[in-house]
Amino acid sequence: MPKVVECITEMRKVVAEARLAGKTIGFVPTMGALHEGHMTLVREAKKVCDVVVVSIFINPTQFGPNEDFDAYPRTWAEDLNACRSAGVDVVFHPHVHEMYPDNWGTWVTVEDVTDKLCGKSRPIHFRGVATVVTKLLNIVQPDKAFFGQKDAQQVVVLKKMVRDLNMPYEIVMVPIVRDVDGLAKSSRNVYLNSEQRQAALVLYKSLCKAQELCRSGEPDSRKIREAVIACIESVSLAKIDYVEIYSFPDLADIDTLDQDALLAVAVKFGTTRLIDNTILKSNHICGG
Amino acid sequence: MPKVVECITEMRKVVAEARLAGKTIGFVPTMGALHEGHMTLVREAKKVCDVVVVSIFINPTQFGPNEDFDAYPRTWAEDLNACRSAGVDVVFHPHVHEMYPDNWGTWVTVEDVTDKLCGKSRPIHFRGVATVVTKLLNIVQPDKAFFGQKDAQQVVVLKKMVRDLNMPYEIVMVPIVRDVDGLAKSSRNVYLNSEQRQAALVLYKSLCKAQELCRSGEPDSRKIREAVIACIESVSLAKIDYVEIYSFPDLADIDTLDQDALLAVAVKFGTTRLIDNTILKSNHICGG
Repeated sequence: MPKVVECITEMRKVVAEARLAGKTIGFVPTMGALHEGHMTLVREAKKVCDVVVVSIFINPTQFGPNEDFDAYPRTWAEDLNACRSAGVDVVFHPHVHEMYPDNWGTWVTVEDVTDKLCGKSRPIHFRGVATVVTKLLNIVQPDKAFFGQKDAQQVVVLKKMVRDLNMPYEIVMVPIVRDVDGLAKSSRNVYLNSEQRQAALVLYKSLCKAQELCRSGEPDSRKIREAVIACIESVSLAKIDYVEIYSFPDLADIDTLDQDALLAVAVKFGTTRLIDNTILKSNHICGG
Repeated sequence: MPKVVECITEMRKVVAEARLAGKTIGFVPTMGALHEGHMTLVREAKKVCDVVVVSIFINPTQFGPNEDFDAYPRTWAEDLNACRSAGVDVVFHPHVHEMYPDNWGTWVTVEDVTDKLCGKSRPIHFRGVATVVTKLLNIVQPDKAFFGQKDAQQVVVLKKMVRDLNMPYEIVMVPIVRDVDGLAKSSRNVYLNSEQRQAALVLYKSLCKAQELCRSGEPDSRKIREAVIACIESVSLAKIDYVEIYSFPDLADIDTLDQDALLAVAVKFGTTRLIDNTILKSNHICGG
């Protein structure tokens, strides 16, 4: 079984001992409800680091007042089992009050890359993410921390934060993991009924359409965006929140695909909002 | 001579080597114009750490648009000499663009303790301080960082920041150093003409008055505050910005001196704004 640590002081002690023994530390921050995507992060961490720490902490400060903090899936027993099977060394599982004690109040805010895509409809989300990841990184002090491309904007924000604040940690982005039918793994997929789940396959379909256009040499990002929107709108259960193309990793506006670009989509199926994305390569040899 | 480092990568290398050799690192962040106050910080650092790093960086982000960033005293040759005399090992002296490259934009903001005292008249000041100190701490990664009580609110803000973001560094507060006549050492004292400098002695005089009242058993913070204001207002060149008493280190409002309290004053002499403070001990055995 992985060692389960609830308290920050003990967590520091455990990593200090590992470090004294000359071991490198890989860190996978999660909010639990672990799925194959998280396990891929763990596998990547195990490949390049001696000790792997997974944090399971549903961070209240990254949920807006009308979001799903209370409803967010909590599956502690299954998560711990998954960590054991994957050979995780330490699970950090702090209580909310351990992370946010009385009189707590210091925020990390990242500018520019947070005011678009998910930042537009979730205005305080990335402030909460940047802040809690800063705290977790400072507690675990890993060599490398692993995040999924599924939350591509999150990776962009965290890489910028680490660079801007000169944090001595490396942020590693790991490709999206999908179900066999193409739906990106997400803890929120459990909210979908079978009809919605079927409809949600349009996300991956629309991204493949974009890659196809990109590979065929279409240089106009507006045309690709319109094709993606048309593809998603053909499914009546899908309600688009956004479909956007920005340069990657700067998230600057672009008209022409003359540099790597992030095509990111957020779509609601019933009350469940799903996100997905793909990187459109400027050399037109596009990956997934 | 101390080793002078201008680039972040080299600074990281220098401290990594010291750490590998098993040495502890003490850090004194400054904006240069070094005086006896800074040198006391260096001496304290040398007492408890193997390697002492002083940074000299006039941080633009902590100056408001109408403040003295351009006029701030720059005395590089003298500063380097002072560091040599004091036995400083490394002087970190980065250019502005090294610290704030293009597309830089991530801020650390500390709530509550920043909206009073100097934070009231200098609204963006502590955001700039918290952000640059975060960056410097992450670059130097010291065991302990030393700050003067002269900027008591700054120490409160940084201690809260380090605690709230779980930074693996210790903030040490070192008592105020004064000229023989009582004027607190400050890089901004050079702005004063001789008449203003004479007038500025009222600051220390007013703090001593408060300590006297405290020692005599006066429990009412309003009465002490009024006595300090009366004392300062007796000098016509002195224009009060604030005279405040808050609990220390929480900076909460207090009526009665039943806990340690910070008496802090900010007063203008001509265009030069000076600050000074003293800690009023709840046990009535008051220090300076």
